[in-house]
Amino acid sequence: MSEPDPAQAAPGISRRGLLGLAGAGALGAGIGVAGGIAVDRFALPPAASAVASAAVYPFFGAHQSGIVTPAQDRLHFASFDVGDITRDELVELLQDWSAAAALMTAGDPVGVYGAVSGPYDAPPDDTGEALGLPAAGLTITIGFGPTLFTSADGADRFGIAGRRPAALADLPHFPADALVETFTGGDLCIQACSDDPQVAVHAIRNLSRIAFGRASIRWSQLGFGRTSSTTTAQLTPRNLFGFKDGTANIKAEETAVVDEQVWAAASDAAADALGDAAWMAGGSYLVARKIRMTIETWDRTSLREQEAIVGRTKGEGAPFSGGTEFSEPDFAATGRGGAPLIATDAHVRLAHPDQNAGTKMLRRGYNFVDGNDDLGRLNAGLFFICYQRDPRTQFVPIQMNLAKNDAMNEYLRHVGSGVFAVPPGASEGGFVGETLFA
Amino acid sequence: MSEPDPAQAAPGISRRGLLGLAGAGALGAGIGVAGGIAVDRFALPPAASAVASAAVYPFFGAHQSGIVTPAQDRLHFASFDVGDITRDELVELLQDWSAAAALMTAGDPVGVYGAVSGPYDAPPDDTGEALGLPAAGLTITIGFGPTLFTSADGADRFGIAGRRPAALADLPHFPADALVETFTGGDLCIQACSDDPQVAVHAIRNLSRIAFGRASIRWSQLGFGRTSSTTTAQLTPRNLFGFKDGTANIKAEETAVVDEQVWAAASDAAADALGDAAWMAGGSYLVARKIRMTIETWDRTSLREQEAIVGRTKGEGAPFSGGTEFSEPDFAATGRGGAPLIATDAHVRLAHPDQNAGTKMLRRGYNFVDGNDDLGRLNAGLFFICYQRDPRTQFVPIQMNLAKNDAMNEYLRHVGSGVFAVPPGASEGGFVGETLFA
Repeated sequence: MSEPDPAQAAPGISRRGLLGLAGAGALGAGIGVAGGIAVDRFALPPAASAVASAAVYPFFGAHQSGIVTPAQDRLHFASFDVGDITRDELVELLQDWSAAAALMTAGDPVGVYGAVSGPYDAPPDDTGEALGLPAAGLTITIGFGPTLFTSADGADRFGIAGRRPAALADLPHFPADALVETFTGGDLCIQACSDDPQVAVHAIRNLSRIAFGRASIRWSQLGFGRTSSTTTAQLTPRNLFGFKDGTANIKAEETAVVDEQVWAAASDAAADALGDAAWMAGGSYLVARKIRMTIETWDRTSLREQEAIVGRTKGEGAPFSGGTEFSEPDFAATGRGGAPLIATDAHVRLAHPDQNAGTKMLRRGYNFVDGNDDLGRLNAGLFFICYQRDPRTQFVPIQMNLAKNDAMNEYLRHVGSGVFAVPPGASEGGFVGETLFA
Repeated sequence: MSEPDPAQAAPGISRRGLLGLAGAGALGAGIGVAGGIAVDRFALPPAASAVASAAVYPFFGAHQSGIVTPAQDRLHFASFDVGDITRDELVELLQDWSAAAALMTAGDPVGVYGAVSGPYDAPPDDTGEALGLPAAGLTITIGFGPTLFTSADGADRFGIAGRRPAALADLPHFPADALVETFTGGDLCIQACSDDPQVAVHAIRNLSRIAFGRASIRWSQLGFGRTSSTTTAQLTPRNLFGFKDGTANIKAEETAVVDEQVWAAASDAAADALGDAAWMAGGSYLVARKIRMTIETWDRTSLREQEAIVGRTKGEGAPFSGGTEFSEPDFAATGRGGAPLIATDAHVRLAHPDQNAGTKMLRRGYNFVDGNDDLGRLNAGLFFICYQRDPRTQFVPIQMNLAKNDAMNEYLRHVGSGVFAVPPGASEGGFVGETLFA
């Protein structure tokens, strides 16, 4: 297998360039030679499982993509723990990730086939399973967990403890939390969303490969179907309770709401108790919750009960106070005997901004099924993701309210959790985290 | 929650009928009344995560669909164990599954919202998460495992031990098999394929719900990306080694090959040692293998080594003997020093019909990622599915050859396994298994 080969001496052919050509319709670039026979190694016809999604979202910009970007259909999310590396090595990892993310979100593979000195006897720089697939709307969003700033034993490994945003507070224990250590926390996170799951998996796999020796996956999650819309053009999807989810979600077009509720501002740092977090301006805070749904129990519950718990009809998604899906719920409306039409413990009431001091979050959740348990029940549920300006005033109080009062809790179990500071977007050619490490 | 409600007295409105209307563009059917306020419960706009796949495949027919059907992009597969039920109850389960499968593959929900006597105070007949989604090419394929005929303790629970096809032999132990009990075997299986994973998950979930008290899931698997084409019109997808997979697969258009290699024939039963298996004519035999790929190790292997192991180039997928993807490999071709261009232990050589007495199988595998292990490595691989006329002369010898000699074995671990007789298609309004239980 180590016989010298003419191909080894060929100039390092960039797969990016080749694939750029292939993507534009040209074929047959990059003729290699193996075993003395000319073979067409790099001809890349459009691959088979390609979804008809030509969307390409830029990686560089004021904000990271994958937040207000129209919610893609599929998710691969990974939380990483950083190994025993220096601050410089952490910065280098973030630079490598950003460079790779910029390539992959453009629909290109990561780097070249092997190093210039040995293109054929080195491992490929890209693992290959997305060769020929379009970008399919891929976004890669990188976040920093509390333990990146201060490790569990209190160490300031990277000299950034003093710059931890107060908004990146550890989440409190919520009533009935049943968190599993192996689905919780992490120093870093990457959210890869795409309309093609092969593209999202390829992104996480290659970023994990690039991190080898520097950071490793702590936990990860595939989501097969989005449960939120983030633009008004998207129709409302359904969660595994069979109900429309995210009807009242923040939409990208509501720019004033996005500015007020989603993006961290420079002025936020002034009120910061822990340190100077001006570097987070234009960033956001991500909360992830892995929520098991006991769907088999739910499925044996009457339609009356299901709808009362949600406070909306199952088919249309209309609030029980009347109208259609997008009608504003009237929480004061009463029916027979003066009882509220939307029950006091209905999910729609407890989660609504009107009942939470006007606060909202931008939700980006996904349905998941991770096989089944010993009793044949599907390990299914909602991988909840939300973005906000400050979890202390948004996710935390809303979730505390839900955890205490929501009639839906009987069918839910929160098994995983994470909170991450999502820095602003990288400048062209820069890296996510540059405002922190500059 | 149990307050009487006018809606309860409404005639049992079929969701199928309503959704049929909705699917044809009509909205607003089925006005219900809840809490004294009229709400539009059943208006169903096309849902959000809908894939642009209008394909509908018939459930009834000479063969079950999901075999030569153009391979859909996504999979949910489940193996079931049957509980302590009678033969009549087993037949009833198969009838219920077939009726539900016929509805779902047509893009309709399962049955009506609740029983006619109590439409609102009964659990919905359909779980709802696919409401408004198109069929998205859904196929539901049902199979019978060896233990359905003769249970592990040798009992003939359903009076069918004498009709077990000889071709439904237990698989032998293959060298290096590392089978895990919880991914292996099963009395029954259901393969749900669709271009929309939400539709495939909905199908397995509802069939599992329908089986409640009669059969329960033993193991299950989601696959996010197909690794085979089954028609000439489909482009070849890539597996998680980054290589094109299934280039030489049987294609539906090769009807003579399909007849010879995929469908069981009435004449097969004559040679049958175990019993009369004429009931399998028009059916097929499914072998499923859950194959973990150690992708992190593979990713650190040189391109030279990867291509030599496969015997094809990574980009184009051309055999090492030259040409392009669909060129026939020339196993006799030699290069420098008389060494074969396609190594003697190359995967393409060992798996090729020319090296296996001309036998082929129709492959229908899927890439999977099931989270990660404790070391941060992705639990990833190939969920291999193949269909054939007789596994004893097709899958078994080919896999024995691969298990002994394939250079790829260093990067593979077979952790799950199942073999199932897939009966012929049900007659219109009939059920899968009718030829066995008639």
